[in-house]
Amino acid sequence: MRYIVANWKQNMVFDATLLWLAEFGRLSAGRSFGCKVVLAPSFLFLPVVSSYAQKLNIAVAAQSVSSYDDGAHTGQIGAKQIRKFCEFAIVGHSDLSESVDAVLRQRDLCLKVGITPLVCFVSQKDAVKYAASGAVLVWEDPRNISEAGTYVSKDPGEVREGLLEIKESLDPKVPVLYGGSVNRGNAYDLALIDCLDGVLVGNAALDPKHFSDIIGKFEKNV
Amino acid sequence: MRYIVANWKQNMVFDATLLWLAEFGRLSAGRSFGCKVVLAPSFLFLPVVSSYAQKLNIAVAAQSVSSYDDGAHTGQIGAKQIRKFCEFAIVGHSDLSESVDAVLRQRDLCLKVGITPLVCFVSQKDAVKYAASGAVLVWEDPRNISEAGTYVSKDPGEVREGLLEIKESLDPKVPVLYGGSVNRGNAYDLALIDCLDGVLVGNAALDPKHFSDIIGKFEKNV
Repeated sequence: MRYIVANWKQNMVFDATLLWLAEFGRLSAGRSFGCKVVLAPSFLFLPVVSSYAQKLNIAVAAQSVSSYDDGAHTGQIGAKQIRKFCEFAIVGHSDLSESVDAVLRQRDLCLKVGITPLVCFVSQKDAVKYAASGAVLVWEDPRNISEAGTYVSKDPGEVREGLLEIKESLDPKVPVLYGGSVNRGNAYDLALIDCLDGVLVGNAALDPKHFSDIIGKFEKNV
Repeated sequence: MRYIVANWKQNMVFDATLLWLAEFGRLSAGRSFGCKVVLAPSFLFLPVVSSYAQKLNIAVAAQSVSSYDDGAHTGQIGAKQIRKFCEFAIVGHSDLSESVDAVLRQRDLCLKVGITPLVCFVSQKDAVKYAASGAVLVWEDPRNISEAGTYVSKDPGEVREGLLEIKESLDPKVPVLYGGSVNRGNAYDLALIDCLDGVLVGNAALDPKHFSDIIGKFEKNV
């Protein structure tokens, strides 16, 4: 099973979120996807997106999670709080510059309550630390994250080589996704990479048509 | 107008939030409060708490806000996104250890979209920087924040002296609240402080009865 994850980051107000869902629903009516499609909206909209999830045949992810179980942490949201609304949580995204220890605590708090952590890593060394039964890893190369809507893609051949190297030191059962300027222009070539377990899509996921097209490229390569 | 703000921090799951609202509604039925009562729930529950706000005669606050307008900031929630659900936002809470520049950006992004920022400060020097037309300041002394439910209160006399000193360097129109182990044991004495414009309540706001009692102490001293 491959994963296609939309990380909306700090984008879209409530009305835009509803419009996105409506348009995506129209584009994906009757499709089974053949892969696990996951949306990570703002925390604000996790409950509402969650209420649409079954109808749209998608799963929901939080964009991050607190390193603490609960308590006096203003502005933080805990795994126990989000579990009602999501099956996944992105943890350790490079946008947040968190310590390895914090990411490990977040991963474990997710696993404890039955949320699948999508653990982002940059170096192979960290991937080895983050791998765990029940976790999904996401390889992010900060050099390839789109800036202000401009994609800075890595060549799919390089993605494949990098992934093979990373996977050498991991249990083969741990899925590894790739994130970094994934868009509908390079999705088909990425989908052809046999050892790739899916993609984390940032900017291109803000347009339901683009995101639907990316899923389509993977559908052709199930 | 004095403010009584509940900061729930990283506490309460969805069901507990609904139970809190139901119990608080029962305790406050028919009360006009005589002061501005504000709840700051988890971002997850801002929409649902917002939908109860009018009925409960309360206002809603976000616990924090992004330093950015929008964009590629995983896990961050922007002023534009929360404005539909809240009238206030706590910014710069000491739990978050943010820079003065970040706090100023957050304050200004709130003001720009019509949200009243509740700007937390520790030193008088920062209070002067944070003061702005439309903003409310909150004096927090990190030594007096409750730990694991144990209150470490400052003597109300000291709170008054500290406040008078802080207010000397501020426009008298800028409201200044106090936060630090506010509970139903010290609320009456705090309410007697003439120059105090309200309180930010942490741990004691997790119990609707305690929070209602704190409001009661201020009602007697309107």
